[in-house]
Amino acid sequence: MKVVALAGGVGGAKLVDGLAAVLPAGDLTVIVNTGDDFEHLGLNISPDLDTVMYTLAGLANPETGWGRADESWAFLETFETLGGPTWFRLGDRDLALHMERTRRLRKGETLSHVTAELSERLGISVPILPMSDEPVRTMVHTDEGELAFQEYFVARACEPVVRGFEFRGADTAAPAPGVSRALEAADVVIFCPSNPWVSLDPILAVPGIGAAVQARPTIGISSIVGGNAIKGPAAKMYAELGVEPSALAVAEHYSGLDAFVIDAVDAEQMEAIRSIGMQPFVTNTVMDSGQARRRLAQEVLEFVGELELAL
Amino acid sequence: MKVVALAGGVGGAKLVDGLAAVLPAGDLTVIVNTGDDFEHLGLNISPDLDTVMYTLAGLANPETGWGRADESWAFLETFETLGGPTWFRLGDRDLALHMERTRRLRKGETLSHVTAELSERLGISVPILPMSDEPVRTMVHTDEGELAFQEYFVARACEPVVRGFEFRGADTAAPAPGVSRALEAADVVIFCPSNPWVSLDPILAVPGIGAAVQARPTIGISSIVGGNAIKGPAAKMYAELGVEPSALAVAEHYSGLDAFVIDAVDAEQMEAIRSIGMQPFVTNTVMDSGQARRRLAQEVLEFVGELELAL
Repeated sequence: MKVVALAGGVGGAKLVDGLAAVLPAGDLTVIVNTGDDFEHLGLNISPDLDTVMYTLAGLANPETGWGRADESWAFLETFETLGGPTWFRLGDRDLALHMERTRRLRKGETLSHVTAELSERLGISVPILPMSDEPVRTMVHTDEGELAFQEYFVARACEPVVRGFEFRGADTAAPAPGVSRALEAADVVIFCPSNPWVSLDPILAVPGIGAAVQARPTIGISSIVGGNAIKGPAAKMYAELGVEPSALAVAEHYSGLDAFVIDAVDAEQMEAIRSIGMQPFVTNTVMDSGQARRRLAQEVLEFVGELELAL
Repeated sequence: MKVVALAGGVGGAKLVDGLAAVLPAGDLTVIVNTGDDFEHLGLNISPDLDTVMYTLAGLANPETGWGRADESWAFLETFETLGGPTWFRLGDRDLALHMERTRRLRKGETLSHVTAELSERLGISVPILPMSDEPVRTMVHTDEGELAFQEYFVARACEPVVRGFEFRGADTAAPAPGVSRALEAADVVIFCPSNPWVSLDPILAVPGIGAAVQARPTIGISSIVGGNAIKGPAAKMYAELGVEPSALAVAEHYSGLDAFVIDAVDAEQMEAIRSIGMQPFVTNTVMDSGQARRRLAQEVLEFVGELELAL
C-alpha cells in the first residue's frame, strides 16, 4: 500500500514515525508544511521539516516537541550575554542543521534537494518532501494585527486572538519535485494529527496539491482529543474563530475525507462524523510512546484496508 | 601619555593587553587590522578584532592563538556530520560573537559601532577601533595564484609561496570614526609586534592613516625574534619575498619609525637599526605570560619617555 502522509509538527511527526516503522521501505512518502519556515539571524529555519527529520532520526526532544534531545546551549547563552535575541531557542547542534540548510540554499540548491541530503546524513530512509521549494509564509491575522507565524507562535506564545490565516506565496507556489508523483501513486493519503489551520491547510493551499489529494482515498486523524489539542494552539484557534473545538470540527474542517479517526474519549461524535460522509474509526489516538505511535499507524492502515479505500 | 597601538592578531593583542594594564584608563586606543575579515557561512568574521577583544576580555585561548579558552564544539561536530565545511573552526561560544556582529551589521550598524557594543558587553574599557568601517580584503598573491587571506592562512595553512599582497578596497576606504582623532591626539603610536605584511600594512594602507601615523612619534616592536616569528608566517613571507627575516628587516619594512624595540637575542642588530635612523631598545620581547606582557609594555612606555619622543 503506497501511503502519503501530510504532516506538520509534533503530532504529524509522531504518526509518520509510526507509519515508517510498520510500512515496508519505499511505501511511505511524507509531505511537510513549510508555511512555518522563516529566516532568523540569516538562517533558513524550517521548523516542521526539522521536527519530522529529528523524529524519524530518533533525535527529537520528546519534552519540548522541538529541537534535539541531546543538546547543549553554549551558543545561545553566549549570544544572550552579547545582546543577541534569544526568543527563538537555538541549541548548538540544532544550529548546525539550520546552518547547513542555509549554506546549501545559498549555493542555489532547492529546499527539497537540501532536505533529501540532510535526511540521508541523518540516516532517514523515508522520503521527506517539503510541500514546495518556493517560500510560503503563514501569516496570522490577530486582534493585534498581522503577525508572521513564528512571531505569533514563539515570540508571542500564541497569545493574540486569531482572526484568520493567510498562506502568503501559496497561490504562486508549485509543489516540490516528487510531491505530485507521490500523490498520484498514493493508495491513500493520511492527514496526520497536525494543526488543521497552520500545519495542513498551508500544504493544501499549494495549487495542485489540494486537488491531487482529493482525487485519492483519504483518511484523517483528529488533532483534537476531548476538546483540546494534545499540543499547540489548535483548540484555541478554533474557539477564537467561533468554532467549538472538537474532533467533529476537525473532520468538518477537512470536508471530503473518506474516513476519519477519532479518540475513544470522543466516541459520541462517531455518528456525527458518519453523517458528514466520513467513515469513522474510534481508537486511542494519543501517541505517548513509540509503541503507541506504531499501534495507531497499524490500526489506521488496517482500517484503510478494511474499508477497501486503497483499492 | 596618550597612546595609540596598531595591532593585528596574537602578538599585537598581547602587547595591547600589557599596555591596557599599565596605562591609566582612557590613555590607550587600539586600531585593529580588518584586512583578515571575511564572510563565512553568512557570518561576518573579523579575526583580528576578535583576538584583541578576547585577549582584553581575558577570554582568549592561549594555546591556539584564536578563539576562546572556555569553548565547546557541539555545533562544529554536528555541522561536520551534516556535510558542512569545517576548515574554519567555529566554537559554540565564538560562533555567538560572529552571529551577533553579523546581526548588527545586517541591521545597518557600522563595524566600529558593533565593535564598541561587543567590547562593552565583554567588559572591555579600552577603545578598540577597526581601521575602517568599509571592507578591506587582504589578497595573497602566491605561486598558485591569488588567494583570499583566510584561504591562504587557514585553509592552506600558509603553504603556497608568497609573491605579494594586495589590500583590496583600501584605496577607497576611510578611517573608521575615531581613528583620525585618536592619531591626532596620540603622544606616541606603537607598532605592535604583529605581522608587518598582513597585519599592520593593511592598516597603514588606508588613506589618511599612514600619513597621520608618520606625523606622530612612533615606536615599533619587532615581530621577528632570532630570525623567526613567535607565531604566524611573517618569517616565511620575508624569505619568500627575498628578504632575510630579521628584526632589522622589520625595522626597514616600517621605514620612518622614531624608535624600534628588538629582542635581546637580536642585540647585535642594534647598531644597524640606529644606522637607519631609529633609536634601538633591546629587551626581552617574548610575551609568554601576563607579567611579561605588562613588563614589555612598561619598558616600551618608559623608553618612549626617556627619548622624550612623546613631548
